[in-house]
Amino acid sequence: MPSGLRGEDNGGNVEKNIVKAAHTLTFQFPRLSFMFPDNYKFTGEWHLIDIQLHPEAIRNTATNYSLIEKKDINLLLKKRGKFDHKGTFGHGLLIAGSEDKAGAAVLAAKAALRSGIGLITCLLPSKAGAVIQSTLPEAMTISFTEWTKKKETGSADIYSAIGAGPGMGTGDVQTRIVEELLIMKKPAVIDADALNILGKNKKLLSLLHPSVILTPHLKEFERIAGKAANGYERLMLQKNFSDKYSCIVVLKGANSSITLPDGRVIFNSSGNPGMATAGSGDVLTGIILSLLSQGYRPEDATLAGVYLHGLAGDLAADKLPWESVISSDIIDNIGNAFKDLRADKL
Amino acid sequence: MPSGLRGEDNGGNVEKNIVKAAHTLTFQFPRLSFMFPDNYKFTGEWHLIDIQLHPEAIRNTATNYSLIEKKDINLLLKKRGKFDHKGTFGHGLLIAGSEDKAGAAVLAAKAALRSGIGLITCLLPSKAGAVIQSTLPEAMTISFTEWTKKKETGSADIYSAIGAGPGMGTGDVQTRIVEELLIMKKPAVIDADALNILGKNKKLLSLLHPSVILTPHLKEFERIAGKAANGYERLMLQKNFSDKYSCIVVLKGANSSITLPDGRVIFNSSGNPGMATAGSGDVLTGIILSLLSQGYRPEDATLAGVYLHGLAGDLAADKLPWESVISSDIIDNIGNAFKDLRADKL
Amino acid sequence: MPSGLRGEDNGGNVEKNIVKAAHTLTFQFPRLSFMFPDNYKFTGEWHLIDIQLHPEAIRNTATNYSLIEKKDINLLLKKRGKFDHKGTFGHGLLIAGSEDKAGAAVLAAKAALRSGIGLITCLLPSKAGAVIQSTLPEAMTISFTEWTKKKETGSADIYSAIGAGPGMGTGDVQTRIVEELLIMKKPAVIDADALNILGKNKKLLSLLHPSVILTPHLKEFERIAGKAANGYERLMLQKNFSDKYSCIVVLKGANSSITLPDGRVIFNSSGNPGMATAGSGDVLTGIILSLLSQGYRPEDATLAGVYLHGLAGDLAADKLPWESVISSDIIDNIGNAFKDLRADKL
Amino acid sequence: MPSGLRGEDNGGNVEKNIVKAAHTLTFQFPRLSFMFPDNYKFTGEWHLIDIQLHPEAIRNTATNYSLIEKKDINLLLKKRGKFDHKGTFGHGLLIAGSEDKAGAAVLAAKAALRSGIGLITCLLPSKAGAVIQSTLPEAMTISFTEWTKKKETGSADIYSAIGAGPGMGTGDVQTRIVEELLIMKKPAVIDADALNILGKNKKLLSLLHPSVILTPHLKEFERIAGKAANGYERLMLQKNFSDKYSCIVVLKGANSSITLPDGRVIFNSSGNPGMATAGSGDVLTGIILSLLSQGYRPEDATLAGVYLHGLAGDLAADKLPWESVISSDIIDNIGNAFKDLRADKL
Repeated sequence: MPSGLRGEDNGGNVEKNIVKAAHTLTFQFPRLSFMFPDNYKFTGEWHLIDIQLHPEAIRNTATNYSLIEKKDINLLLKKRGKFDHKGTFGHGLLIAGSEDKAGAAVLAAKAALRSGIGLITCLLPSKAGAVIQSTLPEAMTISFTEWTKKKETGSADIYSAIGAGPGMGTGDVQTRIVEELLIMKKPAVIDADALNILGKNKKLLSLLHPSVILTPHLKEFERIAGKAANGYERLMLQKNFSDKYSCIVVLKGANSSITLPDGRVIFNSSGNPGMATAGSGDVLTGIILSLLSQGYRPEDATLAGVYLHGLAGDLAADKLPWESVISSDIIDNIGNAFKDLRADKL
Repeated sequence: MPSGLRGEDNGGNVEKNIVKAAHTLTFQFPRLSFMFPDNYKFTGEWHLIDIQLHPEAIRNTATNYSLIEKKDINLLLKKRGKFDHKGTFGHGLLIAGSEDKAGAAVLAAKAALRSGIGLITCLLPSKAGAVIQSTLPEAMTISFTEWTKKKETGSADIYSAIGAGPGMGTGDVQTRIVEELLIMKKPAVIDADALNILGKNKKLLSLLHPSVILTPHLKEFERIAGKAANGYERLMLQKNFSDKYSCIVVLKGANSSITLPDGRVIFNSSGNPGMATAGSGDVLTGIILSLLSQGYRPEDATLAGVYLHGLAGDLAADKLPWESVISSDIIDNIGNAFKDLRADKL
Repeated sequence: MPSGLRGEDNGGNVEKNIVKAAHTLTFQFPRLSFMFPDNYKFTGEWHLIDIQLHPEAIRNTATNYSLIEKKDINLLLKKRGKFDHKGTFGHGLLIAGSEDKAGAAVLAAKAALRSGIGLITCLLPSKAGAVIQSTLPEAMTISFTEWTKKKETGSADIYSAIGAGPGMGTGDVQTRIVEELLIMKKPAVIDADALNILGKNKKLLSLLHPSVILTPHLKEFERIAGKAANGYERLMLQKNFSDKYSCIVVLKGANSSITLPDGRVIFNSSGNPGMATAGSGDVLTGIILSLLSQGYRPEDATLAGVYLHGLAGDLAADKLPWESVISSDIIDNIGNAFKDLRADKL
Repeated sequence: MPSGLRGEDNGGNVEKNIVKAAHTLTFQFPRLSFMFPDNYKFTGEWHLIDIQLHPEAIRNTATNYSLIEKKDINLLLKKRGKFDHKGTFGHGLLIAGSEDKAGAAVLAAKAALRSGIGLITCLLPSKAGAVIQSTLPEAMTISFTEWTKKKETGSADIYSAIGAGPGMGTGDVQTRIVEELLIMKKPAVIDADALNILGKNKKLLSLLHPSVILTPHLKEFERIAGKAANGYERLMLQKNFSDKYSCIVVLKGANSSITLPDGRVIFNSSGNPGMATAGSGDVLTGIILSLLSQGYRPEDATLAGVYLHGLAGDLAADKLPWESVISSDIIDNIGNAFKDLRADKL
């Protein structure tokens, strides 16, 4: 532990009194304060030393904070049965992409397919539809006009889960659609522009429900939950938000923090700086949508999705330097990430 | 044999009286009842034990039921001659794809090309045409308007075989085209929306003929042939349909069942749950169309097509976990499937 | 030699008097009659037995007929110098592709780039332009309207060589462009629809010149030069055509025959039946255009182009069964073909 | 040293008095005259012989001329920190592509992403936008109309660096945009048509500034700086231009010369004639834009960018013959180039 750094809330501490380490060795578990970007200058890279605490002692220590471990995710994964068909794996509705940002929909939809979804339909302006189909023939599209018809005839109810946000824009049509989707009360992952719509229309927040997962990066988080002075305060804001609106929040970054409505906080342990690249968040949206569509519980879809995304990025970075990793590489390694997870003995 | 489970029709049996096995060992051949999804909960995974029945004894046992074996397909495959040219391998017409589902045409056409067709033309709305050509430069397209001209001038007769259905829609234009195609009496594979058109226009069923292969999944089957209480009854419906309309029917699923107009029933033995993914059926349509165009008899095109499709999926699943297999992976392994088939000694 | 088969012209011979061999062993050189499809039923697969004729004896035997050998092509290949730039390798103009057949332009242009061309511009209807650029970002496009402007301002003169035909259509605009191109007297390869334009407008044949290479398949050949009773007669027609119009003709097929204006006939020795697939000819057009642009003499561009095309197809068929080879695979192996050629010791 | 060839300016020398060598061996450093295309016929391939000059002696020899060495670039490369996010790596604005040349934007944007940029937006006509997104889902686009709105609202200021030129055209709209960009005084790389715009509108040259990098090939250089009688004179013109307009100039070719405003001249040592292919320059523009966006100083971005580009081309040419290297191959090897650079011990 760098001398002077507090273990949880380091806010208000005097920076010059804290050692700035290049490396920090810590026993068994990282301290909470290690999870925040503002303390990186004090801890540098940190490493865990296993002091062989008894597993039962660990289980019995009540704490709301934990780190995702590979073996936890391994246990979450569903197995496919012989007679399962594409209906078993659900039909996801992805609201993503616009004329200038159609690629965001491609990335999310492809990630969903590589994560096991049965069928996927992208709801987006018709000009952007051709882009999806040229790049990803396995996906279907539906235009805003067709969507309105479907809503009227009640046939919009065929979808098992919803993903909304990547590159979709924040106009009136999009705002109305986000509202409609939340009212449907289906499992949903809300990202990017769908979050920005919530930020601009705070009254929509009351439509959030326990099957909703929000996946903001720092700026998007501030738009929906406000600014914080430091990492610890931001985490408290995030916990309060999950509690107040009864939804799951994933604050993306190194060691992404996941807050659940019941007060638990889980930090991710996979991923690397090569994933700080255009479209990386769109890929996460696609993976979580896919798991929701396959019937994973929202909490499980979040934990497995966040971990798989980081692991796929780690496998991509085994082959490429961090500068050269692009989001398509993360998608290309989702299959390897599933295999890697399952290869682990329990 | 799980105690209590009947060997053929298990309909009306009392579920609580039947053992629910995790694994079932059976002698030489699986029982018919093992083929139906509703009995999976009784048999679990089943395995064959070879009790060395004399081959001649097997051949002499009259039965309408059989399982496709790799060596049967190996024997069916044609060989190419030195001076064969693209005309030798036929020109397929594929009616597939629409503005919102152009990708279905891409998948079917690519599968056809990878299975050896000489030329392929996709008949679809002109907006969807650019999608095909961007993704698959080897394919040609023709719009509905051009098609009408061709029909009038008689030049629509250049095609050796027809594939219809994937993502084509079920509007009036499409219905008229399906009717025209059936009237042409060419070898044809009918799938997806083309089946739905038959379901909505039952009088078109009278146009079916012995060179037509229908490839419905469960829901599409119900639309053309009606519902059944269980797997055995559904198989009887399927047999009756093939008999009544003199056509081949492939009911897709694990152990796809193939019924021929002469009463024979053949179950497929290749494939895996990773193939329960968007577009997998479109790939099968493309493979069968390709074999028909190359001059395979309808029965042979069906058996070889269904087996190759499953085998390509099995080879894809050797490299990827089931969740991550997408239809493009099945297409990418068609070449390996042909090689694998031929590698087998007879 | 199968008993009864004549060594050159087998026309008029009585079929039942000729042995139908599965394999034919022949000394040092194949006989001319082995080159024709109509004699394949007599020779089956033929194999050469080296009887160690003295090389000088071979050289001194005057003959107009020869077979391309790898070492000949190896010697033709140019080497790149340190300060060579993209201007050194020429700017090719490719007239190919239309709304329904844009993919043909993609295949030809990609083959040209993989064969070493400096720059390539595709002249085609503007709707088809986007297809090229989505698939092949290295290529530029120009619409018919822009082309007319360029012609008027004289700036159409920047191109080093011309390729015309794949998927271009045979309308009035296209006919006028083919005429304009021939008048420019640049090195040119004429294929597919450009050949069909010549077939429909025989007076354009007078514009052919010694830097023009025609690459018809059998049907296209018949449209420009007429029908023949058998392979030998067809070869005579081809020789006469090359002589009369002072141009090079490549009649594509197994053992493609190349006739030069000076009376020589060269048969190709590379290639396989897996290349009997949609777009294979477009790839050849691209390779020859590329070599012409790089300053190869028309004769050399033809021999090297035809041989490289077949060799690339052979390398593709090393990895894939014949059924599964598609034209994109041939393109992907052009690089390997160049390496394979150069790897050979002379 | 070939007898008769001068070591620096060989202009006005009598060609017949100079030895024309196939190979030249030289001590420790190449002579300046070896860098010019017009002297290649005298030196042939040149090779350095290490005569073990003392490193300090080398350092103390004042010279304005140097050759980029791998170890220099290795030292320049930034390292990524754990909490770096896509904002850390900047948002580049790329003005490139038009209806007929959209591919140029694809190549530059893809190269930028493979070199580590956080986000990239392509400013181009809306018709060309779909091409980008179909090919490169990680990129965003903005049309000219949207750009004008952004300029008016001040929101165009979000970009960290600018790249302009590849395939953008030289019309009035484009000219106005180049002017606007230069007025923004952001780090910028100016190539291709943006250079042609400067050549046609010489008064814009006064807007150049020390964070601008111009990357002309020979013809583009002549349009902005005039013609020279030989390589030495051209280098002097280039030095003067950098001095007069206080900007960096990269004259592309074998041994690209880089002139800095302070009078230094650096020659590149990576690259090969396989890179003389359509779009190769667009790739360089993308790499330099990417490094500028990530906060590299303009001088460092230039040196590292030029060297990486050549090294990526060398790695591509390890796998493919020179004829078959296309620009997409260079992009595909940017990751390997970063790895190769870092693998070197210092």
